[in-house]
Amino acid sequence: MIWDKDIECLTHEEMQELQLKRLQDVVTRAFNEVPYYHERYSQAEVYPEDIQTLDDIEKLPFTTKTDLRASYPFGLFAVPQKEIVEIHTSSGTTGKPTVSGYTKEDLDIWGEVVARGLTMMGVGENDIIQNTHGYGLFTGGFGVHYGGQKIGATVIPISTGQTLRQIELMQDFNTSMLIFTPSYGLHLAEVMKEKGVDPKDLNLKVIGFGSEAWTDEMREKIEEKFGVPAYNIYGLTEVIGPGVAMECPEQNGLHIYEDHFYPEIIDPKTHKQLPEGKNGELVLTALTRVGMPLIRFRTKDITNIRHETCGCGRTLVKMDKISGRTDDMLKIKGVSVFPSQIEKALLSIKGVEPHYQIILTRPDILDEIEIKVEASPEIFFDNVKELIGIRDKLAQAIHDEIGLRVNVTLVEPKTIDRVESGKAKRVIDNRGK
Amino acid sequence: MIWDKDIECLTHEEMQELQLKRLQDVVTRAFNEVPYYHERYSQAEVYPEDIQTLDDIEKLPFTTKTDLRASYPFGLFAVPQKEIVEIHTSSGTTGKPTVSGYTKEDLDIWGEVVARGLTMMGVGENDIIQNTHGYGLFTGGFGVHYGGQKIGATVIPISTGQTLRQIELMQDFNTSMLIFTPSYGLHLAEVMKEKGVDPKDLNLKVIGFGSEAWTDEMREKIEEKFGVPAYNIYGLTEVIGPGVAMECPEQNGLHIYEDHFYPEIIDPKTHKQLPEGKNGELVLTALTRVGMPLIRFRTKDITNIRHETCGCGRTLVKMDKISGRTDDMLKIKGVSVFPSQIEKALLSIKGVEPHYQIILTRPDILDEIEIKVEASPEIFFDNVKELIGIRDKLAQAIHDEIGLRVNVTLVEPKTIDRVESGKAKRVIDNRGK
Ligand SMILES: [Zn+2]
Ligand SMILES: [Zn+2]
Repeated sequence: MIWDKDIECLTHEEMQELQLKRLQDVVTRAFNEVPYYHERYSQAEVYPEDIQTLDDIEKLPFTTKTDLRASYPFGLFAVPQKEIVEIHTSSGTTGKPTVSGYTKEDLDIWGEVVARGLTMMGVGENDIIQNTHGYGLFTGGFGVHYGGQKIGATVIPISTGQTLRQIELMQDFNTSMLIFTPSYGLHLAEVMKEKGVDPKDLNLKVIGFGSEAWTDEMREKIEEKFGVPAYNIYGLTEVIGPGVAMECPEQNGLHIYEDHFYPEIIDPKTHKQLPEGKNGELVLTALTRVGMPLIRFRTKDITNIRHETCGCGRTLVKMDKISGRTDDMLKIKGVSVFPSQIEKALLSIKGVEPHYQIILTRPDILDEIEIKVEASPEIFFDNVKELIGIRDKLAQAIHDEIGLRVNVTLVEPKTIDRVESGKAKRVIDNRGK
Repeated sequence: MIWDKDIECLTHEEMQELQLKRLQDVVTRAFNEVPYYHERYSQAEVYPEDIQTLDDIEKLPFTTKTDLRASYPFGLFAVPQKEIVEIHTSSGTTGKPTVSGYTKEDLDIWGEVVARGLTMMGVGENDIIQNTHGYGLFTGGFGVHYGGQKIGATVIPISTGQTLRQIELMQDFNTSMLIFTPSYGLHLAEVMKEKGVDPKDLNLKVIGFGSEAWTDEMREKIEEKFGVPAYNIYGLTEVIGPGVAMECPEQNGLHIYEDHFYPEIIDPKTHKQLPEGKNGELVLTALTRVGMPLIRFRTKDITNIRHETCGCGRTLVKMDKISGRTDDMLKIKGVSVFPSQIEKALLSIKGVEPHYQIILTRPDILDEIEIKVEASPEIFFDNVKELIGIRDKLAQAIHDEIGLRVNVTLVEPKTIDRVESGKAKRVIDNRGK
């Protein structure tokens, strides 16, 4: 089923026409209503009337997280505060958080795009969505909450944690969709196993996950453990929250709701647009946000985009799942390495569990990489000999992927810290210490 | 300002006419759609057509928390599950929780009643509501969230905890309304004082609180610390959530949204209705709930109701704030004591802080009551002599209130556990141990 066939199946030309009109509108509004844009555009000597085609977007300066912080708290709002009905912020681990303000129209757009995505995942009014994302300043929980209500599904806003309670409700309420971060999902699956609850005996039909980078290998583990397909939900608080792009049953990319969020892929160094299919930094323009227009926002997320006719029937541009973040990239012995490359290699080898840590040290002058990964129980306890073979295979697979030698340690099952809430900490960089 | 003058200022006769019509509707619907009611009413030989006047409500059996548990999870729903868009549950500390299911219409009613209440507290589209109630299965956060959005205020859904962050946002975002439980509010005030932040320097205008019983003396402390008026919000997850009744600026009772929630006060022993102004157990009937009609629900909350012309201009029936719960009542040496009586007595004496615990023991065959209460810093550290005088005054005030001798211990400031999330634990009953 398609939630809004008129939009989701537009021809590329029709979409571009709509995008251009909306881009012109939002640039005009930002220039007139938001001092930050007025100043930036005046400095760059680019004005709303210079946007004559979609390609003209390249004339506009980027907006970065640093710009948002400098405008803290309400400097990017394009409407009087009284029109803002909800505020979210990014985590803000260092310094002030970035702020996202929503008018009623913005909340409606947010619910609408998530409604499209949930419909795409086969979820409808008969479904019961158990939403384990946290509700609060962070946008996590609210996107699925608003979208789920819009399609008439039943939302259980349980938020993260209380894992035993989660399992009880899955059983009692016949939960058909789970929303979780991959790391919380793994934890949940593990506790279910301990308690003798087989996810396959439940009413579960589909999983939606987001808020964390993950590999295809991680998805396979999760689908295997829960016995249902798992689809990706992508978004950023600054742009609107989860729901900027969602994955269709083809499972080879996410449809970007490009009538609302215009994507570009740029080379993070040269800042030039890259051609379709080429990996680079995703830049997003919120074409319709009323409360807080965000133009050419540098997401730091690495992916690529492509226009193609999707097997699901939608024409909306697709992006690959995020393969890393520009600031996730590790420089190890001068080589660029993404944690996702290591995960991919790890999970390609049988006999290990998807719980691992990447520990970087510099004992002398050279970087060293230690990978701690949990062996599967049946191997660890019953088949000590095999462990050495697996360790060598892991080291080889990682070498093949990143071109560096690593020390692999297979550790006892369930000895790497689990995440009861929030995101897994995969990389421990002790090189400065 | 009055959000919905047509309803909030109806004459008593007009209101009764509306209530009777809605009562007849809901009883008919419950009888026809919900097996639980069909069975109970058939057993009691009372049928929808027996409801000819509002007084006929007394013919209907009560519904208790135990009945709700027996119907767990969805047994009281009057519509197919696909029409339910949100589910909340009560805390369920023992056994299964009680479940509350909402259709879109129910969420709209919920937002509507809270919108009336916030308007009554002087809050409007220019206000910034920092909502420290938790979001999740519990209804706490969502009532104010939906109501705040409805009036066009800006809601910051920060939820409980992260106290330093709360203070930072109050400063940065110019928060004009705080929503908290009294015990979290006290904690917040204390941390602000430690950090040298004076609430009176902020943009704060009003406080809304609920989810915990409190005394007038506790309200005075909170209003004194924050320098703004604090109003009560009452509700129960089973009935709809916070927003069943809210307090007007007269501060002498809460207006019940009686067009949606029909109140009765009964004697918890005889089950007979009590006359106006007399304390008893509040029984509520949700007249308009679509998803889950709740008829004659015994709240266990003790209060009284009265019809009067309020100074604020509203004609909606008023209830006193909850003075206790039928199951809060302590039997000590055969005497009935409510913790709120002790709080009232404690806070009437100068020199102590509103942090206390009531500890019950039975060293031999007789109950003993120890009250631990924090002395104010200036007294505790600088004026040891005065402590004895205060202790005696406290013991006397409590004796005057409950008629029993208690041992009072004045403890060092900040030595009684603070509540970072949820509700304070005031009573520790060790008598069985
Ligand atoms: Zn597709
Ligand atoms: Zn009043």
